[in-house]
Amino acid sequence: MSDENRRPAIVAGDKRDETSRNGHLVIIGGGEDRTYAKQILGRFIELSGGTEASIVVITAASGVSDHMWEIYQQAFGELGVIDVSHLAIDSRRDANSERAVSMLSAADGIFMTGGDQKRLLALIGATGVDRALHVAFKERNACIGGTSAGASAMSGHMLARGEAVLQPEKGAVSMAAGLGLVQHVLIDQHFSERQRLGRLLTAVAQNPYLQGVGIDEDTALVIERGAGIEILGEGAVTVIDGRHMRSNLAQIAHRESPEMIDVRLHLLPAGSRYTLPAAGAAEDDDADALPSSMLDFLRNVTKRQPLS
Amino acid sequence: MSDENRRPAIVAGDKRDETSRNGHLVIIGGGEDRTYAKQILGRFIELSGGTEASIVVITAASGVSDHMWEIYQQAFGELGVIDVSHLAIDSRRDANSERAVSMLSAADGIFMTGGDQKRLLALIGATGVDRALHVAFKERNACIGGTSAGASAMSGHMLARGEAVLQPEKGAVSMAAGLGLVQHVLIDQHFSERQRLGRLLTAVAQNPYLQGVGIDEDTALVIERGAGIEILGEGAVTVIDGRHMRSNLAQIAHRESPEMIDVRLHLLPAGSRYTLPAAGAAEDDDADALPSSMLDFLRNVTKRQPLS
Repeated sequence: MSDENRRPAIVAGDKRDETSRNGHLVIIGGGEDRTYAKQILGRFIELSGGTEASIVVITAASGVSDHMWEIYQQAFGELGVIDVSHLAIDSRRDANSERAVSMLSAADGIFMTGGDQKRLLALIGATGVDRALHVAFKERNACIGGTSAGASAMSGHMLARGEAVLQPEKGAVSMAAGLGLVQHVLIDQHFSERQRLGRLLTAVAQNPYLQGVGIDEDTALVIERGAGIEILGEGAVTVIDGRHMRSNLAQIAHRESPEMIDVRLHLLPAGSRYTLPAAGAAEDDDADALPSSMLDFLRNVTKRQPLS
Repeated sequence: MSDENRRPAIVAGDKRDETSRNGHLVIIGGGEDRTYAKQILGRFIELSGGTEASIVVITAASGVSDHMWEIYQQAFGELGVIDVSHLAIDSRRDANSERAVSMLSAADGIFMTGGDQKRLLALIGATGVDRALHVAFKERNACIGGTSAGASAMSGHMLARGEAVLQPEKGAVSMAAGLGLVQHVLIDQHFSERQRLGRLLTAVAQNPYLQGVGIDEDTALVIERGAGIEILGEGAVTVIDGRHMRSNLAQIAHRESPEMIDVRLHLLPAGSRYTLPAAGAAEDDDADALPSSMLDFLRNVTKRQPLS
């Protein structure tokens, strides 16, 4: 069986241990540590059930998928994972193949690498692989991880094109349909490092019912379905909520900067954890009650969306 | 008298025209156009009373004050200003001199250049020049302009040191006492261009009763005392209001990132104007009513602070 020395940070475990009772998403802002302590990848393995979990790596976002596979094969191996395999997808036919679907159906953890989220969706959107991801998360309570493009692809709406604008600019971003493992949010990655607040504000101005989620590099937003969230790693997660804002976006010309008044911003540093309040708890009585905009975000991302 | 061709954008004027009835602050985020249309400097002249206004340039923030004077002498000259003079201040004795005070007492517009706001305050803080600036703005309804360091110096609290942190970090900024022409705000400049949101959020986390004001380059926040504000130029003004936020700053260690939940953010692009609602107006009846956080900001910066 496994060699204790190869899995320093993780307790090898029962696949049905407490942390795997609900499905999890591990949404990583890119640039996660794959060499040293590997905190985020370690947590992904832990939430998948530990070193004896069955892990599948989807590299379809990348144009150099074999290279991506080598990187994660090594990283997960160093974390002590015994059963890690590569699901290579070069066509929609591959993504509808029985082999692909059966690999995912047996997986405890599924990891989507970086690359280009449009490429990923073009290959797997509305295929057997897409369906198997939803079944894994929603019915089998598996753990789905994704970094960079693999993170952006998780939401129902995703950024298809986004310029690095210093300030919001009408038309600077465009959207596409993502996997929809989490709804009503828009995930952006490499957030602080690539100065992406301007484009996330643009996206929220153009799509006020989406909550913008900017994830820094080597940082993860971990969502436990029906339960809560935690932030891991080195940076922070920035949430932009424009649902109550006053904006003139509809009145201005292409490329003009919109007015955006009363945007709610939440900055959640690594180490933070937020748990859904117990049903029926009197929120007003609780001195630690979250502000309503943050509570809405928490409820939204942890919502038990049905398998449609 | 003046040559019409030298003052293209400005109507030469009666010093007592409508726009000069209230004192104005023209707070510029640095890098304003001094060469081409000079929109912001032109508006500063206009608010000072037009091309026949008496303009004084304070260069004390700069270590190369003669060079700064040459730049603005030329720019204001090209805008058609006839009476523009240089107030050079090399010591606190200079700043308390009768000559300095009498120059400012006769000025319709006073402009403070960039440089270092700590140097500026070290030279003029609590001197006759400081007092004359307050008298000019509050009693004589003059126009006070400032760019970069000259902008930061205008608020009661100013950034003394601020690192370019990607995300807020406890201890990354420190504060000093500014001129206090506007209170309860903290002005930062070169805002989007130098990626200063992280440090402004840090400052607000550390000083929750200050509203952070980030001004982009070639962009000005114009405040009309007792009346309203407008944004001029090429970029935007970002307002960060943390008064209602939940934060753990008091609990975390030096250099850790604070949690900041429910920060209000307003993005005000150039071209925006906001006027104080008429006294007694029923705010709820007005479909265009500003959200309360923005209204608080507007009321605060336009407040007729007394001459103390």
